[in-house]
Amino acid sequence: MKDRIYNPVQDDLERVKNKLCNFCPAGITNFPDSQKMLGQILGGGKLLRPLLVLHSGNFYTYRPERLLPMATSAEMLHVATLVHDDAIDKADTRRGKPTINSIWGPDKAVVLGDYLFACAAEFAAETESIRAVKLFAGALASISTGELRQSFSAFNKTQQFDQYLKRIIGKTASLFAMATETGAVLSDAPEESVKILKEYGMNLGIAFQIMDDVLDFTGTEEELGKPVASDLLQGTVTLPSLKIIEYYPQDNPVKRLFEGKGEPADNIAEAISLVKETSILNECIETALGYSRAACRDINLLPESPSKDSMFALAESMVKRRS
Amino acid sequence: MKDRIYNPVQDDLERVKNKLCNFCPAGITNFPDSQKMLGQILGGGKLLRPLLVLHSGNFYTYRPERLLPMATSAEMLHVATLVHDDAIDKADTRRGKPTINSIWGPDKAVVLGDYLFACAAEFAAETESIRAVKLFAGALASISTGELRQSFSAFNKTQQFDQYLKRIIGKTASLFAMATETGAVLSDAPEESVKILKEYGMNLGIAFQIMDDVLDFTGTEEELGKPVASDLLQGTVTLPSLKIIEYYPQDNPVKRLFEGKGEPADNIAEAISLVKETSILNECIETALGYSRAACRDINLLPESPSKDSMFALAESMVKRRS
Repeated sequence: MKDRIYNPVQDDLERVKNKLCNFCPAGITNFPDSQKMLGQILGGGKLLRPLLVLHSGNFYTYRPERLLPMATSAEMLHVATLVHDDAIDKADTRRGKPTINSIWGPDKAVVLGDYLFACAAEFAAETESIRAVKLFAGALASISTGELRQSFSAFNKTQQFDQYLKRIIGKTASLFAMATETGAVLSDAPEESVKILKEYGMNLGIAFQIMDDVLDFTGTEEELGKPVASDLLQGTVTLPSLKIIEYYPQDNPVKRLFEGKGEPADNIAEAISLVKETSILNECIETALGYSRAACRDINLLPESPSKDSMFALAESMVKRRS
Repeated sequence: MKDRIYNPVQDDLERVKNKLCNFCPAGITNFPDSQKMLGQILGGGKLLRPLLVLHSGNFYTYRPERLLPMATSAEMLHVATLVHDDAIDKADTRRGKPTINSIWGPDKAVVLGDYLFACAAEFAAETESIRAVKLFAGALASISTGELRQSFSAFNKTQQFDQYLKRIIGKTASLFAMATETGAVLSDAPEESVKILKEYGMNLGIAFQIMDDVLDFTGTEEELGKPVASDLLQGTVTLPSLKIIEYYPQDNPVKRLFEGKGEPADNIAEAISLVKETSILNECIETALGYSRAACRDINLLPESPSKDSMFALAESMVKRRS
């Protein structure tokens, strides 16, 4: 499966990874541990967003000189938002590694995040495409409004699916869509194909985030690289907890947790059991599956390319992932 | 003086101000007080950076359709960094008004700052000039490294003038230089004029920041819109305190403050007296004057334009300002 997903753009993805791992511009080499820290956080993830830029750029004129900077930009933008998330949440670990927040403190983490935004914007501009830059800026705007929405709705027990959907589109799917849309644009895809690829990214991103929210309940701390049910602890209602509230409206552990009734640890444990032991888990996976199928709906209308099979495999893998 | 500085571009600056005051995009209208808050912080300043974009764009082909978005972008980038500064410093007031931090709390202020970065980038991209976008991204990178430098050197008593200069170039002058350079670029100025205008912005920015640092000691809380000597309280060494350390190496109130000796309020009061009552005040103003003269050195090499006199007047006003 992994080969199917990566093979057609493996070499260029390696190049992006190297660029990210060794990224330490003159501006910040003087600060303690900066090089080591940056390499770890920038090149340490699954690089899904760069992968999406490269595959989406592989249907028309594949132009590495534009696609590689854009792929680097997409991951850097993603990491910049994670650095800010960790500063805000005072998180100590991410992907099992210490966060910038835990090493430098939240104040410097905010500024380093800003710096990474700047570098991400510089990489986006390296494509020499104003349209790609506009998509980049639009994605950052969506991510921040998604985060604002999430923080204004924290500990709110009366949320609906459409509000949840709006939030995860903002904070996750818009960046996936930016990755696939810029890949298309930078390879001179015609407008109808740009639209198909953008929709692929958007639906894939929704499926990805739903599964992320499921794993927050069903994974282990080791698999997740962070505490289990951390969303719930921060008052963030995701699809599984939305369903708990919906199915047990009179009394449920989410409500109790948000109202400060009972031991938080007991409420969390009960919420995890409910998700795992009722139909909730399968329903959430079904919903994610629906979006992953929607992602693939029009991919066959695109011209032949080795990346087509990878994009099908990637969509399939979304609902099977364990971390 | 005010007329001389503003007149040639007054109408377009008004347009930028209106755009900023009424800025409240769909994405965030639902959040409490967002429109009122944003208008206040975005349009409430002196708009020096937009002014610089417009004047610098007034020597060759003045193109409002490019210069106005860039001017808006420059101010928005500036305000975004202020929002983050206030979140980091937990500041309650700015320009005499409540900060976003004090209304929404630091976590949401960080995300709102990110959102303003995104909008600033969108405005920069509206110029349709990749070069302007690159200058925009470079300015954000300089500002954040300047901030990082400042926070890593806080409470350090052994700083030199060149480290101070590097920091204020990063956090202030680079954005002034971005404003003048983009103004030049967007009006199709030849490269030698781009360079002259960029240098003007850089030197003006240094003069501005030195005077800002002087005013932090000599102004009143009312004039400053924030507490007197707030830099010193946060451990930031600026030109006046650098000179206190240099002239009184054995024992001085800055050293005592940083070492936690004596009452902080007494040390602050003594530092303020020292700056005001010795030659330090005049020496700092002389240094600022030097940079404001350097800013103007080559301006006469530019073609005739009503903005030329404004730029001289602006440089003159730098060392006379009281807030």
